[in-house]
Parts: sequence; structure tokens; C-alpha cells
Amino acid sequence: MAATGGRHFLQIPGPTNVPDRVLRAMAAPTIDHRGPEFAELVRELLPALGPVFGTTRPVVVYPSSGTGAWEAALVNTLSPGDRVLASETGHFATLWTELAGRLGLDVDMIPGDWRHGADPAAISERLRADTGHAIKAVCVVHNETSTGVTSRIPELRAALDSAAHPALLLVDTISSLASIDYRHDEWGVDVTVAGSQKGLMLPPGLGFTAVSDKALHAHRETAGLPRAYWDWTPILAANGGGYYPYTPATNLLYGLREALAMLAEEGLSAVFARHQRHAAATRAAVRSWGLEVLCADEREHSGSLTAVLLPEGQDADAVRRVILDRFDMSLGTGLGRLAGKVFRIGHLGHFNDLSLAGTLAGVQMGLQLAGVPIKPGGVEAALELLK
Amino acid sequence: MAATGGRHFLQIPGPTNVPDRVLRAMAAPTIDHRGPEFAELVRELLPALGPVFGTTRPVVVYPSSGTGAWEAALVNTLSPGDRVLASETGHFATLWTELAGRLGLDVDMIPGDWRHGADPAAISERLRADTGHAIKAVCVVHNETSTGVTSRIPELRAALDSAAHPALLLVDTISSLASIDYRHDEWGVDVTVAGSQKGLMLPPGLGFTAVSDKALHAHRETAGLPRAYWDWTPILAANGGGYYPYTPATNLLYGLREALAMLAEEGLSAVFARHQRHAAATRAAVRSWGLEVLCADEREHSGSLTAVLLPEGQDADAVRRVILDRFDMSLGTGLGRLAGKVFRIGHLGHFNDLSLAGTLAGVQMGLQLAGVPIKPGGVEAALELLK
Amino acid sequence: MAATGGRHFLQIPGPTNVPDRVLRAMAAPTIDHRGPEFAELVRELLPALGPVFGTTRPVVVYPSSGTGAWEAALVNTLSPGDRVLASETGHFATLWTELAGRLGLDVDMIPGDWRHGADPAAISERLRADTGHAIKAVCVVHNETSTGVTSRIPELRAALDSAAHPALLLVDTISSLASIDYRHDEWGVDVTVAGSQKGLMLPPGLGFTAVSDKALHAHRETAGLPRAYWDWTPILAANGGGYYPYTPATNLLYGLREALAMLAEEGLSAVFARHQRHAAATRAAVRSWGLEVLCADEREHSGSLTAVLLPEGQDADAVRRVILDRFDMSLGTGLGRLAGKVFRIGHLGHFNDLSLAGTLAGVQMGLQLAGVPIKPGGVEAALELLK
Amino acid sequence: MAATGGRHFLQIPGPTNVPDRVLRAMAAPTIDHRGPEFAELVRELLPALGPVFGTTRPVVVYPSSGTGAWEAALVNTLSPGDRVLASETGHFATLWTELAGRLGLDVDMIPGDWRHGADPAAISERLRADTGHAIKAVCVVHNETSTGVTSRIPELRAALDSAAHPALLLVDTISSLASIDYRHDEWGVDVTVAGSQKGLMLPPGLGFTAVSDKALHAHRETAGLPRAYWDWTPILAANGGGYYPYTPATNLLYGLREALAMLAEEGLSAVFARHQRHAAATRAAVRSWGLEVLCADEREHSGSLTAVLLPEGQDADAVRRVILDRFDMSLGTGLGRLAGKVFRIGHLGHFNDLSLAGTLAGVQMGLQLAGVPIKPGGVEAALELLK
Repeated sequence: MAATGGRHFLQIPGPTNVPDRVLRAMAAPTIDHRGPEFAELVRELLPALGPVFGTTRPVVVYPSSGTGAWEAALVNTLSPGDRVLASETGHFATLWTELAGRLGLDVDMIPGDWRHGADPAAISERLRADTGHAIKAVCVVHNETSTGVTSRIPELRAALDSAAHPALLLVDTISSLASIDYRHDEWGVDVTVAGSQKGLMLPPGLGFTAVSDKALHAHRETAGLPRAYWDWTPILAANGGGYYPYTPATNLLYGLREALAMLAEEGLSAVFARHQRHAAATRAAVRSWGLEVLCADEREHSGSLTAVLLPEGQDADAVRRVILDRFDMSLGTGLGRLAGKVFRIGHLGHFNDLSLAGTLAGVQMGLQLAGVPIKPGGVEAALELLK
Repeated sequence: MAATGGRHFLQIPGPTNVPDRVLRAMAAPTIDHRGPEFAELVRELLPALGPVFGTTRPVVVYPSSGTGAWEAALVNTLSPGDRVLASETGHFATLWTELAGRLGLDVDMIPGDWRHGADPAAISERLRADTGHAIKAVCVVHNETSTGVTSRIPELRAALDSAAHPALLLVDTISSLASIDYRHDEWGVDVTVAGSQKGLMLPPGLGFTAVSDKALHAHRETAGLPRAYWDWTPILAANGGGYYPYTPATNLLYGLREALAMLAEEGLSAVFARHQRHAAATRAAVRSWGLEVLCADEREHSGSLTAVLLPEGQDADAVRRVILDRFDMSLGTGLGRLAGKVFRIGHLGHFNDLSLAGTLAGVQMGLQLAGVPIKPGGVEAALELLK
Repeated sequence: MAATGGRHFLQIPGPTNVPDRVLRAMAAPTIDHRGPEFAELVRELLPALGPVFGTTRPVVVYPSSGTGAWEAALVNTLSPGDRVLASETGHFATLWTELAGRLGLDVDMIPGDWRHGADPAAISERLRADTGHAIKAVCVVHNETSTGVTSRIPELRAALDSAAHPALLLVDTISSLASIDYRHDEWGVDVTVAGSQKGLMLPPGLGFTAVSDKALHAHRETAGLPRAYWDWTPILAANGGGYYPYTPATNLLYGLREALAMLAEEGLSAVFARHQRHAAATRAAVRSWGLEVLCADEREHSGSLTAVLLPEGQDADAVRRVILDRFDMSLGTGLGRLAGKVFRIGHLGHFNDLSLAGTLAGVQMGLQLAGVPIKPGGVEAALELLK
Repeated sequence: MAATGGRHFLQIPGPTNVPDRVLRAMAAPTIDHRGPEFAELVRELLPALGPVFGTTRPVVVYPSSGTGAWEAALVNTLSPGDRVLASETGHFATLWTELAGRLGLDVDMIPGDWRHGADPAAISERLRADTGHAIKAVCVVHNETSTGVTSRIPELRAALDSAAHPALLLVDTISSLASIDYRHDEWGVDVTVAGSQKGLMLPPGLGFTAVSDKALHAHRETAGLPRAYWDWTPILAANGGGYYPYTPATNLLYGLREALAMLAEEGLSAVFARHQRHAAATRAAVRSWGLEVLCADEREHSGSLTAVLLPEGQDADAVRRVILDRFDMSLGTGLGRLAGKVFRIGHLGHFNDLSLAGTLAGVQMGLQLAGVPIKPGGVEAALELLK
């Protein structure tokens, strides 16, 4: 029997369920991007964006996906052949370094098991060994969307500091921003990369880079990769007057204004706490079913998503198909080396207790229908925690 | 801790959750209600509306609430002082007869306990006793929104027939149309009253009357109550050309077209089956909690809503408040003599398994938080049935 | 060549072009009409509605068309057989009295030529002759939508006063409210009737009655027509708590809130002045073409619409068809005895100078294409005035 | 007196007035970009996109502005130090070559007076002189948005052919696509660059490149510029399955589907003819006012916009300000060396005769109010032509 009626449950770890308020804000007529009304919009938006990144420094907004912001972070700060240190925490960490390689950077990837975050000790070791400071940047994914594992950014910052290494710290927060506590300035991050379609509750189409003074200095003084579309300099210059050097994605900016208003209404700390509660409740359900959460370190559980490891011999994508067909819910697939082995439950963005209960109910029934041997009671375990 | 994030769960028994498709359809620009594009809309809408009522006869659409359609059914068919027979099945049956009284009709109300539908035997008895045919109409609420109890219309029709009584049969389907199987023609109903904001998945603002040939005859030949706004004659005449005699609620009609398309895509029988499954799952949860469903006759359970009776001494409205505050879900209050004693769970309209699971999770947690003694496991019991 | 591309010009005298802000406001999810959020909406709306009517007394909002509000005004204040005095100022004045007749009222209609407003002298004469006070109400259409002629309400009030006649003064402002200066309290009107789809810039679906103390007194003490749906008493009682006695048209109320905010932002006096400018510019164009404006009294030109009289032998509807086909603009048809002789240009609601220029350009080209002999230069004459 | 009421007239040459149909389409919920429903969307969109470019070859869609598509055209086909031939036809031709320079290309710019399109003879001469085939690409802007002058692409193609020069032909159609006749395949263009916010009637946020086999060959065999985000290869590979290699701008794609449907409904040749009529009517008005159209060659008038040259000593931006303040209409400013000397009237996208009439009325009144000496009658001259 196929699913009928009611709203789709979009429980992939992004794009997330866009609030109707945001969709309606985006449906306003497009305006002249060189007129006074647009300038007001920019002057309202940019200051409201800083707190979400935990920064008082500039945030550059691009018409792009998050992948574009990855590229922007690199081409604005690095030169051809520069060495970049990274940790293989999962699929997206891998993709980012592949992109770096295609841009002509020399990537040093610390291997990983895709169940842990970036290892501060391993990074520290590489940095200390790099006495010639060949490493120009350390690239870390704050929240690995493919695994549901976070990296402990303050400890990585400490690793750089204790090694007295001048490399830039570049952090991908695509699936953590506005969902998991994050502090660009306080944690000494140089470039923070983000996208619109996760915790910011927007459709995809905007990429972001938050930029430290040190990153800006590298941008101006040393960075030699060719750059044009992504170039911070003309954007920051135009932003000063309330404009962009090329046509911005106006209607997505309307949505951004509305989404920032919603985050401010709820309060960022309440937003973070909500995500932690939902993540904890999800883990309670998973464990109650007798299944394993992919993340192997209690300090590194993601607040945004939970990757569920299936017993050997079970096909995670078959479970996802049953759930999509029967309950009209989309879950995240296993990516890269995790294909078929895990599915991922997104519990981020515009979300609440009852939607989580519905989500977990769908997962539980789908596991049963797909013949995965589980213990009953996962939903009740989650409710116990939510209550 | 107050509810934050995510969508509101509107689980009153109407207005129901309006699909975003319908809301977007309604956001189209208003057009000239005397122009050719409007005529096309009407010529598409009216034939598509018939099957939902189970009729090939006219359906009159008003800019009004369902209460307006109650009035329309009466003023179009009856005369001052006419006797009307009704059954006290709940709050809305009572309101309808009060309205009839205010219009100058003489109501004979068969008392009821608000836990059963209209009693065919009792009605039959009154009709047989009415050898002078003073009773001009029998008014029945198909699905009592205040109690979650349906009346068995075919048996009532049989009562009229076996008494060979010429009274008109007027049926309120405000909370059953497009949710619970209903057949205006086959069941010999004379006027079927409906509203937009329940199974039709629209915002409130449209009232409907489906009209049998017999009702139309009474309208033309005998009905003497003053009528103007509600008068069928000019509306039916104008409808022939694709118009209305006064400005119709154009944008709600756009929504109606979209909602009818959605019902047709799912198929009415699938829609009815979905409602029955959800109602059964809800009852499974309620009983698993050790609580009582208000409806006392297995043949009369509503597919649209379930009224839950709380143990003596518990305040149903306190439970509703906890649920609204903590889980951002609206449930129906106890009305009239049921105030404080029941709450009502709406599971009709644009709805699906996972939304029902979320709904029942909210009810379960809310009951616990409000201190109502329940057995755990209600949600799991519902999932067992949904699966 | 048929019209292609661009927005439709909806220049009938209502429904008017609904602002996209209002349409988006209406696309918000429907909420529980018995919940606290709805009560806040009502408590915000009703006080904001008063100034638009020029009243501090109650305004009753119905899910209905304006025709419903006509009926509401009558059934709430009058009794079967009551005499009502009216002026035949046009099609809608005629329809309102026909409706009154169908409700059992005894209408005394002062004949008119459909080119003038209600004649204060004629009304005064009837009232003075009515020494027995058989006349219970005077019904006047403030702005005749079929003719573009206004009636001078303060002079009519003076006629009642000088005759010391106790009749109620009932005024239809369906196509003048929020477009032409109007003052319910100051002018001593007893019931003001309005609809949503004209100056209020909403889709059709809401009817309004503003109610004086004297009207309320008649309602409570003497009015004997049967009433239920339209009954003020339960609505005013429920409004006190922020509710309605039956399901209100929630999404239209969202739109109303937005429309009232827009009117407040522009300022009512600026709104009225804008309509007067547009009406004057339209007349300048009509006269420059060598055509005649239907309204025959300079004191009575409508700010909302202009009816244009065609030379003998010309078919106004043929002109309208050409304009609809070629320029995708809807104009108002001639109604009743004016059929084929006039067309009506609506210039009310959400409208501005450039849209008026486009409108008049379409009329000018359409007249030429339809072969109506006109002098060129009408658009330029209007621009001269607008500039 | 400031503008009040009514819709803004967005008559810059892009972004253009987005149809409400498109805005509503974009307001649908975001879906899983790796799910079956998304794949269907892509499989429907891409084939429908080809005809608009006049191609049966691939069209690559980016989440980006048109500037991004400029970059994509270059980095996918060229190598560092490659020579690029261009014509200085205006501001955007200049910006594109500046961008090329920043990417490490060697630009040979043929000077121009900003009143003519690219000169086929001058280009032919350079190509013939380049016997060593150092020139790898010729970059031309089909419709210069800063000047309202088109370049004659077939003649430029002929110049390449007659010189038997292997350079790629890269054409910017940002402000001509879907407005002015254009044929990627027939005219032998190698990369066509476009954006969403002009003739495609969408908000900004999508960039496009249509790609010839020859361009694809260069991409695969010779192009050496670093590329990642813009890389055609992974996108074309993913498109085959109905997907994108990174998160696409889903909701803009919904809008694109709707806009393509609208173009198909009207028919592309009708769309082009409409733009030509509006451009001709605009020139008729400008000349009637006694002003000069910037475009100096009758063969090169733009169908999308008209740049109006003011008499010496007049400030075009002052005129624009008056028009924005008084008539709520945005016009395009003079860019680069034309600053203050011209203003630009956009008459492209979702537009019709009456909106053009309103636009020209606003320009005429604004010129008069700003004290620019003009002859009256421009609007009438345009109407004469439109009729």
C-alpha cells in the first residue's frame, strides 16, 4: 500500500523542511538589486548573520551551493601548490579535499574510519612535524553529514596553537550551522563555510564564508589561486554600500531574512538545545531497537543527524525504499564506503518533538517491514526522553 | 519548556491542515467573476464536486461557513412553523436545531446521551405516529464533530421509507464529507450540508448544499421561509452559465479546484480507507492507555475524529493546554455538556501515518505530563496497527 | 493578435487587484479558531477595522459576500412588513431593494435616472410626509458600482434630521469603503454595509456591517425578522473574547490584517486623495476622447470607478471584448438598463499612476480598434493631470 | 508627493517582473535532491530547456548568477595564458574580459564606442592576422545590457568561418535569451552563457551554459584552467541519472519548470515578436520626445531594453530618482562610461502592452518633472504603434 495524504517527511540531513514562513517570504516580487530597498535589505541581513556564525567579522554570501563556498574558502586564501592538511572523517571531508586537489592544492589527508571526528592528536603531530610551515591550511568538517560525527573544533584550534603553526583553520559547518553550537571568532576559525539548506531552513542556493582578519590578510597578501566569481574583495567593497558586485539571489535573501528572524525569536541557545534533545532521543530509539549508532565517540554525536548502522547482511537502501513508499518519508542514504550499510536520519532545522516522534515511528515501522530484526519500543524510549 | 521550532500540529476536528498545494492555488490573483476564465472555473468545479457528495444533482456553493449552509438547507425547503424532527446526538445537532428554532421552525428533538448516533427506531416511531405528516423534515448530523459518533444514514432513510413518510431528509456532513463514505443520491438524502474546512482540506469560508429533486420541488412549490442570500433559484440559474448571482469567494474556489484534484488523485475510496485506518489506530492507542472512547457503539465510530473520555476528576482542557504549550498541537475541546470531560483528536483531511504517529505521541506525553494515569504503550499499539 | 505575456489588468470596479502581500498573508496555515493565537488576531483586527469605517462602534465580519451583508443589515434591524425607503440610483440599489422585498419588507423606491445619486430633497419630502413613521429605514448606496455616481450621505442625514424622522439610515459602501472618504459615526449612519473585494484589496469572501448604538437598540428591542447566521448578538458576544460563534474565514482574516496594515501605512487620507486624483485623470481622458461620463452631477463623481457612456449605436460590450482579447484587461460591463451602453473603468484599491496610465492606454486603443469615433490624446490629458 | 499604492514597476533590464505563477511554483516545499521525484524534475526540465537556447546539446545549470556562468564558460574550455578576443561593446563586455583576465587569460579587446555591436569586420581582421591560432576563443555579448545594442552573431560566426579560424565562439545571452531570437546550434556558438533573471522570468540565482560538441571536446582534451564547482564533466554525468553532483537550487528549478511552461504556452516566436514590438514602440516614444536612442545602428536595436541618451547637461540619474519617488518605477542606471548620461528602460520578460504604456507614461512624466526638455506625445506615438 503506497503512502497517500498528508505532508512529506523530509528527514534527510538537508535540505531540510523549509518553514512556510520562509517560503512565503521568498515569494515576494524580486526588486532592483541596485536600488535603495535592496541596500536596506543587505544592511539588515549582514549584521543579523554574524551572530549565527559567532562572528563580528564579515560573512560573504554567494549565489551557490555549499560546494561553491568550499571553493571560495580555498581560492580566496591559498596559492597553487599550497599544502593543505585534512582528516578523512567521511564522505564530505573527502569531497572537499578532492575539490582542493582539482584546484591545484597539495592535500595531506589523515586517514580515518568514518566513525570519529578529526583527531586533534594526529593533527597536532603533523603540524609539529611541519617545521617549515609548508602546510598553509587545515580543513575540517565540523559536522560530517555522511556520518553524524562532529569534530571538536576548539581542540583542533588548540592543536594549531600549541604547535605555534601559522596555518589557516578552515571549517565546513554546512550541516551544523544554526543547529549545533559554533563560534567562529571564539574558536579562532579563519574561514567558516556554510550553506542555506540545513540549519538555516532555506532552500538550497546560497553559500557562505565567514572570514577572519587573518584569512583576509592571506587573501590580500599571499593568495595566488585565480579567482573572480568567488573573490571576497569586490563583494566586501560592494557590501559596504548595501550591494553586491553581481546580481545576488534576491528571493533567497528574502528567505534568509525571515529565517534569521525565526532563529532570533527562538534564541540560538534554545535552537541548539532543541537539536541536542532530538539527537539524544533518536539515539535512545536506535539503541532501544538494538541497533548501533555509527558515531563511535560519545563526545562527537551530531545534533543534526544520526547515522544508523544496520546489522551485517541488511540493505539500508531497501529500508529507505520501504519507508519512502509506505510512509512518504525521505531518509539519507549511505554515502561512499557506507553505501548500503547505514541510513541517516536528519533531525535538524525547522523541527519539533512531534515531527521527531513521527519520524522515529516511520523508521521503526520501516525497519520491521523491511525485515530488519529489531527490538520493539524504540519510539516509546524516545518519547520517554522527550517528555 | 515551551514548544519551539517545526510545524504546528492542527489536530482539532477541523479546520484541518490545509495542504500547501491548496494554499498556493488560493494565492493566485483574483479574476473577474463575470469573465470567461471564471466561467471555465465553475464549469470545471461543479461537475468535479458531485462525486464527493455522491450525487449527480446540483451542489450549491456559498461564501459562508457551514452554519450558513445549515440555514440554507432550512430556508430553501421549509415554511414558518414547519415541524422538524431531530436527534440530540451532540453539540452540533443541538446548535442546528437551535438555529432552526430561531428561523421559526418547530423542532421536535429526540433526546440522546451524546455517545450514540441518531436512533433509527426512535425516529421511525415518531414518523409512524405522525400520521398527519406535520413533520416536514428530519435533520441528522452524519458525523457529530463534538462526539466522534456517526449516524447510520441508510438506516434512517429506511425508517422514513418504511413509515412511508414524506418528510425531507436533511443531513449535515460538515465533518464527514470527503473523509467518511457518504452517498447523497444512493441513500436518498434530500439536502446534504457541508463546509470547506474539514475533509475538503480548505480554509473555512465555503458552505455547500447538495440538493435532491424532491428538495428542489419543495423549494419551488411549498417553501415559505423568507430567503435571499441563500436562495437556490438564482444561484442554479447563474451556475448554468458558469456564474454566480453575487460575487463568489473566488480564491477559495481556486483552492477547491486543487483540493478536488488531490482527492481524485488519491481516489475517494482510498481516502475513506485511510481515515478508517487512522481512526482504528487512534482507538487502539486510546484503549491501550486504559482510556475510554466516547463513542459507545462499534458501528458508529467516526473516521474523522476520536473523542477521548477522561477518568472522573481529570480536566481535559488542562491536558489540551499542556499539549499546546509543550508540543504545539491543538486538540478539540469538549463542547456543551462534555466540556472538560473529553478532548477530541482530529485525524481527518490532509493527513498520513507519520503525522498520526506524531499526534498520538503528543497526546500520550501530554496525558502523562498532565498527570492523567495511563498505561504506557499506546503509540506502539497504534504503530502495530498502522504497520 | 491575442494578448500574451505580462499581468492581467483587472480594472472592473471590484474585485480589485489583490496586493501580493495580501495573497501571501492569506497563504499562511489555517489555525484553531478557538485557540489563543486566533483570539490575538481578532483583538488586533477589530480595533484596526473601526477607523476604516470611521467608527468606534462594533464592526461585524461575516464569511459572506457583500450581498450577505445587505441581508445582515436588514434582518438585524427590521421586522416583517416594515417600510423601507430607497432611491433608484442604479443596479445595485435596485438589487438591494429586491432583496429587501424577498425578505418581506415593503420597499418604497424613489425613481431615478441612474446618473444621479440619491436626492436629499426627494427623500426629505417622503420623510416629512411620513408623519406616522411607517418608514423604518432609509437604504442608500454610497457609491453606485453600476454607474460611478456617489450619494451625498451627509445631506441625506440632514434630510432625516430636519424631518425629525426616526428611520434608520442604512448605507452600502461596498465599492467606496477605503477608497472614498466615509464616516459612519460622524455622518450618523446606523448600519454600514461593506465587502472585502474592493477598497479593502482582498479577495471576495468577507462581508461587514458597522453598527450604531441606535441600530443595536433596534436589533435588541424591535427587530422581528427571523435571523440566525447574520445575528449580531452571538457574534458581538463571542468577539468580546476574541472569537466567533461559528468558524470564521480565517485565511481571509489574515489577508484583512495585512490590508489594514497597508492602508495604515499609506494613511487613509492619502488613500482617498489618490483615488480622487485617479478619478479626475480618468475623466480628463474620457472627455478628451469626446466621450461622456455617465455621472451627471459634478458633486457626485465616484473616486472608485468611472462609467463611460458610448455614442448611440456603439456596443460597449464589443469594446470590452476587444480590450480583453487584445490587451488582457477586464473592464466592467453595463448592468441592467445600462447594458451595452456603458463600460466601467475600476480605478480603486491597490492601484497607482502608472497602472492607471496603462489602463487608460488600453481603453483608448480598444475604443479605436472597436471603431468608436474618438479624438486622440486622452491618455496624454490624463498624464498632464497626474504629473 | 511620494508614490503610494499599486505594484512596483520593475523596468530595469533585469531582474525582471517575475510572474506570480513562477513565484508560487517556487514556494513548493523543497524535496530530496537524490530522490526519484527530483530525478523526474530534471528529466523534464533539461529537455525543455534546449529549445530556448536553440540547441539539442547539453545545457548546464548552476546555482549561481550569470557572472558565474561567464566563469564557467571560460574555465571549462581554456587554459592559463590562452588568448581571448573580445569587442568592447559596453560595460558587461568589459566586465567579462576583466573576469577573464583575473582567471589568467590574455584578453585582446577591440575598442568600441558603446553604441554599436561587435564589428564582424574588425573581428575577421584579427582572426585572419592570427595565423598561429593563438586566439583560443572569441567572447561576444549578444545583447549588451548596458547599451541596448545587440551583436550580430551569425555575421561573427561567418567571420570565424571565413577566416577558417578554430577559436571557440562564446556568447553571453544573459539579457537576450528567451527575449530575442537566438540559435545556439544553427549559429555555431560553442558556449552560450545565460542567467535566470531576465527573459526566463525567474528570480536571480541560476546560471546556464549551453555547450557545443566542439566546446566539450576542448573541455576534455585541452582546457587547463583549474575547475571544480563549474566543471561540466561531473554535472553532465550526474544529469544523466536525473541528478546533480552537489545540491542544486531546487526551488529555483521549480520556478524554471513553470517559466518554461509559460514560454511554451506563448510560443517562442510570439515571445520574440512581442519583445520586438515593445522595443519599436519604445523607440517611437523616445524619438517623439526628441531624445536619442543610444544604439546607433538600426540593425542592432535590442528587443529587451532601450538606453535613452539625455541631452548634454542633463543628469539621467536625477530623472531616475524622480521616477522612482513619484511613480514607483525602477529604471536602469547608466553604467561605466555612460554613468549619468543614459537611463535604460527594460521591456523584457513577463510584460505586455499596457504595462509598457504605463512604463512609457512614467518615463514621460518623469522627464518633464525633472526638467528635461522634451516634446510631448511620446506615449501616444507608442500607442499608435502598439495598436
